[in-house]
Amino acid sequence: MTRVLKFGGTSMGGADNIKNVANIIKNYKQNGDNVVAVVSAMGGETNKLISLANSISKDPIALEMDTLLSSGERVSSSLLSICLNDMGIKAISLSGRQAGITTDDNHNKAKIDKINSSNLQQYIKDGYTAIVAGFQGFANNRVTTLGRGGSDLTAVAIAGSIQADVCEIYTDVQGIYTADPRVVPNAKKLEQISYDEMLELSSLGAKVLQSRSVELAKKLDVKLISRSSFEPNTTGTTITKEENIVEQPIVSGIATDDDQVRVGIYKVIDRPGIAGQIFSKLAFAGINVDMIVQTVGTDGTTDLDFTVPTVSINETKKCMKKFEHECKYIDYNEKISKVSVVGLGMKSHTGVAADAFMALANNNINIRIISTSEIKISMIIDKDKSKRAVQALHDIYKLDQ
Amino acid sequence: MTRVLKFGGTSMGGADNIKNVANIIKNYKQNGDNVVAVVSAMGGETNKLISLANSISKDPIALEMDTLLSSGERVSSSLLSICLNDMGIKAISLSGRQAGITTDDNHNKAKIDKINSSNLQQYIKDGYTAIVAGFQGFANNRVTTLGRGGSDLTAVAIAGSIQADVCEIYTDVQGIYTADPRVVPNAKKLEQISYDEMLELSSLGAKVLQSRSVELAKKLDVKLISRSSFEPNTTGTTITKEENIVEQPIVSGIATDDDQVRVGIYKVIDRPGIAGQIFSKLAFAGINVDMIVQTVGTDGTTDLDFTVPTVSINETKKCMKKFEHECKYIDYNEKISKVSVVGLGMKSHTGVAADAFMALANNNINIRIISTSEIKISMIIDKDKSKRAVQALHDIYKLDQ
Repeated sequence: MTRVLKFGGTSMGGADNIKNVANIIKNYKQNGDNVVAVVSAMGGETNKLISLANSISKDPIALEMDTLLSSGERVSSSLLSICLNDMGIKAISLSGRQAGITTDDNHNKAKIDKINSSNLQQYIKDGYTAIVAGFQGFANNRVTTLGRGGSDLTAVAIAGSIQADVCEIYTDVQGIYTADPRVVPNAKKLEQISYDEMLELSSLGAKVLQSRSVELAKKLDVKLISRSSFEPNTTGTTITKEENIVEQPIVSGIATDDDQVRVGIYKVIDRPGIAGQIFSKLAFAGINVDMIVQTVGTDGTTDLDFTVPTVSINETKKCMKKFEHECKYIDYNEKISKVSVVGLGMKSHTGVAADAFMALANNNINIRIISTSEIKISMIIDKDKSKRAVQALHDIYKLDQ
Repeated sequence: MTRVLKFGGTSMGGADNIKNVANIIKNYKQNGDNVVAVVSAMGGETNKLISLANSISKDPIALEMDTLLSSGERVSSSLLSICLNDMGIKAISLSGRQAGITTDDNHNKAKIDKINSSNLQQYIKDGYTAIVAGFQGFANNRVTTLGRGGSDLTAVAIAGSIQADVCEIYTDVQGIYTADPRVVPNAKKLEQISYDEMLELSSLGAKVLQSRSVELAKKLDVKLISRSSFEPNTTGTTITKEENIVEQPIVSGIATDDDQVRVGIYKVIDRPGIAGQIFSKLAFAGINVDMIVQTVGTDGTTDLDFTVPTVSINETKKCMKKFEHECKYIDYNEKISKVSVVGLGMKSHTGVAADAFMALANNNINIRIISTSEIKISMIIDKDKSKRAVQALHDIYKLDQ
């Protein structure tokens, strides 16, 4: 069987950790598996290079930042190859270019155009473990980088291109949990979860897997496993198609997102198209508007509530300037959290939302905004009640069992 | 005029030093010069990578060491380009491959095969300052490195390939001195020196320029300037063809080499070819034998003295095992120094050697071995008298004037 294994910065941090990773690969090779490893830069290295560049220029040129930052992954790929060769396992490091990864020329946040995996396939055929430097590609004879979570993307794209049986994403946590174990001590590790549930969980704050790589895995039909390089004997969490999940739980997990701001626009004069104007202006500025609630009053005015990411708050305020005279006032509340209940089984079960509202009411937690999709219920509540809310929801759905 | 500027690890060490280097380039650009810069890894980085690799493997595979080590020069080239772009000077970093440098596939000590400088020439034509990562090339789709002093070699080879007017080698010293200023306080900086004198000086211990790059500069007729990036207003030392040096001094400088061992083989049975056998065995083992003296005794036996580099001592002892029964005894003396007097004018002046012997005799320094060439006299003396010998020689030839 052919496996793509991706090792993050913590897994590659230092000689001992690299040896540990080499042993994981060795075990698979001894089973007769083909292995391609994709590696991140050693923990902390990328930030070191960024701060070096920032000490030289306040706005370092993007094209050169890519050459600079790509070096971290090249270093860790050659170190892992040195380690494997030392253990008697044939291995070869490959840069993004050598692995055939071409991208668009959008430096610092390039998109993979295509992968020519012939070089990689030949190495696999010749019995090599190929170690691909993650996070990077090539365009117009220059190195490009893929932005945040780029190494996960590299791994998934390669797994799709060589039709690997599985893509294992190694980090320092054992997999995906029913809730953040730091908040809910009796949170349970999930054995499996669907791409769509994972997308809801990762975009909502479960930081183990980036949304972009889960989306790509879904598109390319790549089976993902999230697991820990420090406890390689635990099974991790499999992320796969809905059809492959035999027993679909009603609720799989509870996620929180503390990095949202609620924007309230009160007593908007309710002329046609005003909401459309507001949201197209925000969209044009690249602001990711999430939950929206509109309340039409009896006096012919409307209240509008929505959330935006905390990082976009200044940009949002700029956009809203234009609409200040069309309403009574606008306020911005950063002291909120978004708590979400995610589960495939919601599609076929009723009463899931009612249980959630009841659980929060029983804990004296007010819900400010509610939004729902086929497989999730999201609620905006006061930030200082977020932990209590997650625990209450975890309990009501008996996720520890 | 077109200049190739090479900046060593100390010149590139840290943000402030990189800004300093960028200012040197800026001054030339403002004069209307074309500039290609060749850079080493930031001071200490290469050693850090080597010790990381050694903590993973006692004998790291050469092919991967090249990928690993080449990253240091890529980092410094992109940082310098970031700095120049920030100052409004168009610049682009180029890896060895991007600069068109192909080598043989002798990893860790590759030789430059050829340079396809079309890419580089186009950037120069378009007004860019190209920043080439030194020390590296490309062979069979893999990175290669050129070994010690590799960045100097890159600079000289590029200067030859684009027919630059000059190749300036920047370090933390102001140029080539008549003797090591730490030993001889009144040593003087030389304004100019011939390739051949420089070769004698550099192979004898003046560590500013590596022999390989001086040899290549001589072959490609590249004018070298050795100068300091920390005092860019001082003129440095020009290394050029003998014909360009108008006033040829009798003695240019005094060099010492403390890393030699004298091997003495006493009372060898003087059968034909024994010396030839010894030296061909040493040559076959890759040991660089330097000075040789043979003394034939009246009893039909011979004494043989020669020097080898201290790093080759164990290998030499292995080779000599075979000859132990053919002589009375063999001894190895590490407490020696080689002191050399170098100067073009020796070709046409007599009495230079006599002055040297007299100077040492007046200081009670015994000479164990002497060897001479057209432009140099080398003498083996006791190591603890080396400093006194250099000062005495410096004085007798009035090199401070």
